[in-house]
Amino acid sequence: MTTTTSLTNHQVRLAARPVGMPTRDNWRFTDEPVPPLTDGDVLVKTLALSLDPAMRGWMNEGKSYIPPVGIDEVMRAGGVGVVIDSRNPQFPVGAHVSGSLGVQTHCLVPGADIRRAGLAPIDTRVGSLTQWLNVLGMPGMTGYFGLMDVGQPRAGETLVVSGAAGAVGQTVGQLAKILGLRAVGIAGGKAKCDWVVNELGFDACIDYKAGPIKDALRQACPNGVDIYFDNVGGEILDTVLTRINRKARIVICGAISQYNNTTPVKGPSNYMSLLVNRARMEGIVVFDYADRYPQAITEMAGYLREGRMKSKEDVVEGIDTFPETLLKLFNGENFGKLVLKVADA
Amino acid sequence: MTTTTSLTNHQVRLAARPVGMPTRDNWRFTDEPVPPLTDGDVLVKTLALSLDPAMRGWMNEGKSYIPPVGIDEVMRAGGVGVVIDSRNPQFPVGAHVSGSLGVQTHCLVPGADIRRAGLAPIDTRVGSLTQWLNVLGMPGMTGYFGLMDVGQPRAGETLVVSGAAGAVGQTVGQLAKILGLRAVGIAGGKAKCDWVVNELGFDACIDYKAGPIKDALRQACPNGVDIYFDNVGGEILDTVLTRINRKARIVICGAISQYNNTTPVKGPSNYMSLLVNRARMEGIVVFDYADRYPQAITEMAGYLREGRMKSKEDVVEGIDTFPETLLKLFNGENFGKLVLKVADA
Repeated sequence: MTTTTSLTNHQVRLAARPVGMPTRDNWRFTDEPVPPLTDGDVLVKTLALSLDPAMRGWMNEGKSYIPPVGIDEVMRAGGVGVVIDSRNPQFPVGAHVSGSLGVQTHCLVPGADIRRAGLAPIDTRVGSLTQWLNVLGMPGMTGYFGLMDVGQPRAGETLVVSGAAGAVGQTVGQLAKILGLRAVGIAGGKAKCDWVVNELGFDACIDYKAGPIKDALRQACPNGVDIYFDNVGGEILDTVLTRINRKARIVICGAISQYNNTTPVKGPSNYMSLLVNRARMEGIVVFDYADRYPQAITEMAGYLREGRMKSKEDVVEGIDTFPETLLKLFNGENFGKLVLKVADA
Repeated sequence: MTTTTSLTNHQVRLAARPVGMPTRDNWRFTDEPVPPLTDGDVLVKTLALSLDPAMRGWMNEGKSYIPPVGIDEVMRAGGVGVVIDSRNPQFPVGAHVSGSLGVQTHCLVPGADIRRAGLAPIDTRVGSLTQWLNVLGMPGMTGYFGLMDVGQPRAGETLVVSGAAGAVGQTVGQLAKILGLRAVGIAGGKAKCDWVVNELGFDACIDYKAGPIKDALRQACPNGVDIYFDNVGGEILDTVLTRINRKARIVICGAISQYNNTTPVKGPSNYMSLLVNRARMEGIVVFDYADRYPQAITEMAGYLREGRMKSKEDVVEGIDTFPETLLKLFNGENFGKLVLKVADA
C-alpha cells in the first residue's frame, strides 16, 4: 500500500468568466494537500501543459463540443507529467504520461477516470515531452485528422493554412508537403513567415500583419485553393473564400480572431463562394478520432525520426505565469506550439 | 427546305446592372425579325418561362458558377415552348421542348447550340408545361440532387427547408417525406405555411413573418436538425445553425434574403456551430448533375403520377410584366413556383 503525504497541489482555477480578453482577475490560485490514493488511482506530477486557443472557448458558458469549465474548477488543460505515486499497475511510478491534467502541479487521476482523462503512457524516446504536446499530441492529431479526413488532400493540390507557425498549422503544412501538395501558410510577422518557408519547407507564407492578404494570396496560389485549413476565422477566412477552387474543402478548426470578441462573431460574408464552387466547409473536433491516435502518432513519429517533420515549441516557465502566458496565443506572440513548463522532468 | 418569314421576336434585354432591387430601368424591350433558319436550327415559340431567384445573381458582374448576362443581351431564362419551325430532325415541328430560351417570345436555337441551351423534348403526358418548369424542371432537379447528393438524407432524420412554398422548397420537403424524414418548412405567411403542411404533408411549417423563428424551430424540431436546405441565408440560416445536430449537413442552394443587398452579404455568425457539431456546409449547382436528370425526372414523374408529390405553380401572364413579376420572388409574393406565361400552347 502506498500513501502520499505532505504534498501540496498548486492550482489555477477559473474565478470568473471573461468578457473579451481574459485578465488575471478571471483566475484564482489555490493550494491544497494531495489526498491519499486509493486502489486504481494514479498521481501525476505535472511537467508541462499545453496552452491552446480552444481554452478560451472552454471559459465561456454555453453548449459546445465539450462542457465549459465550471466557476471555481481547476482550469482544463492537456499536459505531460510523470507518475510519482500509483495504485494502478498500468501506470507505474516513473512512467511518463499525457492526458487532461489541468492547470495544477499535481493531478490525482482516480481509477474510474483514467479513460475520461485520456491518461496514456508516452515514450520519451519517440519524442521529447514538449513534442508530445505538439506534433505527437492534440495539435498534431488535430492537424492530422483535420487534413486527412476532412480536407481529403490529393497530391498536386494547393493547401492554405492559417496560424501556420502555430501548433496545428505547422503540422498541417508539413503533412501537406509530405503528401505532395503545394503548402501556403498565413502567419503574423516576417520572422514566423521566414521560418515556415525556410525551416518547415512550405512553398510560401503570407504575413497577414503586412496588410490585406488578397494580392499575396493570389500570387502564392496561382492555381487557386483546394483546401483551406482555418484556424483564425474573420477577414482571413473571408478572403480565402474568394480564391477557392471547384470542390474545395474548408476545414473549420478554429477562429482565434473571434474568440475574444465582445461583439458578435464575424460570419464569412463570402460563404456563397461555397455554392459558386460547389465547395464544402466542415468542422473538426479531434476527440472524435481518439481510436485512431495510436496509428497517427506512429506515422508522425516516423516523420519526426526521418527529419521530414519538425516540431517547434515556445516554452514559458512557471505555472503562475499562466494568465499572461495564455494571452500570447491571442496576441499572436507565441512562435511555435505554446507550452507552459511547470516542473523539471 | 423551311424558311420562316415575317415573325417578330419580342425580347427583354438587360439594359443596366441593378443596384439593390431591380427596377424597370434595368430592362429594355426590343423587337426584331426572326432570321431564316439554316440546317440544324430549331425555332421555338416560348410558351412559359421559369422565373428564379438565381436570375438576380446572373444580373451582377463578377465570377460565379455561370457567366453574367451581358449588358444588352436577352435576359437568360429557362422555359418551355413548342417547335414551330425546324431544320433539325430531332426536334420536329409541334414538339414540346424545354431549355434556356431567354426572356423572348421566340428562340432560334442554332444547331451547334442545342446542347449548350439544354434543349430537350418534354412529354406533356408526364407533366403539364408548368410542371416541366417546376418539379420536373430545374427547381425540381435542384431540390432532388441537393437533397440526395449533398444532404444525404436518412429515414428518421429531421430536415428543415426554407422557401418551403417555393419551387425548390416544395420539392425538397415532399421528397424528404417520401424518404421517411421529418420535414419542417419555413415560409412567409400563414396561407403558405398552412398549404405546406395541409397540402404537401410537411410535419410543420414556421412562418418567418410572424417573428423570430427561434422558439418555433425548437418546437418543430424536438430532435434537432440533421439537414438544413437553405434557400434564403441571412438571419434564418444563422438561427438554424444554433439547432443543428452532430454531423448535420447544410445544403447551400441560395440566399434570396441577400441578393438585393446594397451592403455586404451577412455571413453566418454562427458558423462555428459547424465545428461544435462536426457539421458540413456545402454548395449545390444543379448543372453539375445534368447527366442524371433523366433518371431523376423519371423518379419524380412517378411520384407525381402516384399523387405522392404535388407541384404548385404561380402563373403570371404577359412577357411585358417580366420586370415586376420577377420582383414577386424577392418580396415573397409568389405562392408556388413562379412562372411567366408568354403564349398559349
